Amino acid sequence: VTDELLRFANDQLASSIPLMRTLGVRLVDVRRGHVAAEIPFEGNGNHVGTMYAGALFSVCEVLGGVICTATFDASRYAPVVRGAEIRYLRPATTPVRATASLDEATVVRIAGEVDEKGKADFVLDVLATASDGTVVATMRGDYQVRLRR
Amino acid sequence: VTDELLRFANDQLASSIPLMRTLGVRLVDVRRGHVAAEIPFEGNGNHVGTMYAGALFSVCEVLGGVICTATFDASRYAPVVRGAEIRYLRPATTPVRATASLDEATVVRIAGEVDEKGKADFVLDVLATASDGTVVATMRGDYQVRLRR
Repeated sequence: VTDELLRFANDQLASSIPLMRTLGVRLVDVRRGHVAAEIPFEGNGNHVGTMYAGALFSVCEVLGGVICTATFDASRYAPVVRGAEIRYLRPATTPVRATASLDEATVVRIAGEVDEKGKADFVLDVLATASDGTVVATMRGDYQVRLRR
Repeated sequence: VTDELLRFANDQLASSIPLMRTLGVRLVDVRRGHVAAEIPFEGNGNHVGTMYAGALFSVCEVLGGVICTATFDASRYAPVVRGAEIRYLRPATTPVRATASLDEATVVRIAGEVDEKGKADFVLDVLATASDGTVVATMRGDYQVRLRR
């Protein structure tokens, strides 16, 4: 992934969802079937010195949209989140990195279903890790990709 | 609920979780066993003109902590979120109000368990509605109240 592509992807993210800039979320990897983002601790903490649950959720959830843009033709496919479940495993006291992947079979299945039916559902598992690699949260999101009209 | 109490609760919220002020979240009802908060649309939208999923999640999730403070002795009991599941039912294009309640039997059960075992789990169901009353999301959060040491 080139710096230029990442800069482009981050500009697009911030203009799509202004809150991402407010939270300080930065995409750090954007490839077909794989995306990663980081959120700083600064500005996203709470009174007990851990990252606020909603900030952690946001850096995870946003990857569902980002992975669609990174993997499919964004001019044709629009992602929607239908629901998500997050588990908070450890308090986060550092910046957090969220990562998610879709395997090639799933990518092909989604593309085929959207072309055939106009929409396709997919599940995305997101892993959120602290600076030392500790898993602080896992999120499972239910998304739908729809053909733009 | 007096204006003074609400102002106090909102000041406390913003100092506990600075992101709440950034999101524009305001508590509008804070009583034993019942809390409500509102989030403005302004600043929390996305490129398709609906409220961002993470903003909606945050105004729902935060009620778990708020209802503990409103219901129990906050100097003794500290709430922790262990996980949450949110379902997005309709796109939100207006300010959103999130509401949550704990019935009296649950309040008594939690207080008894914390005093006896030092902690108690509880589930909180949150309803998020648009200005016209349409339910835009439901969230179920798993929380734990712990005795402060």
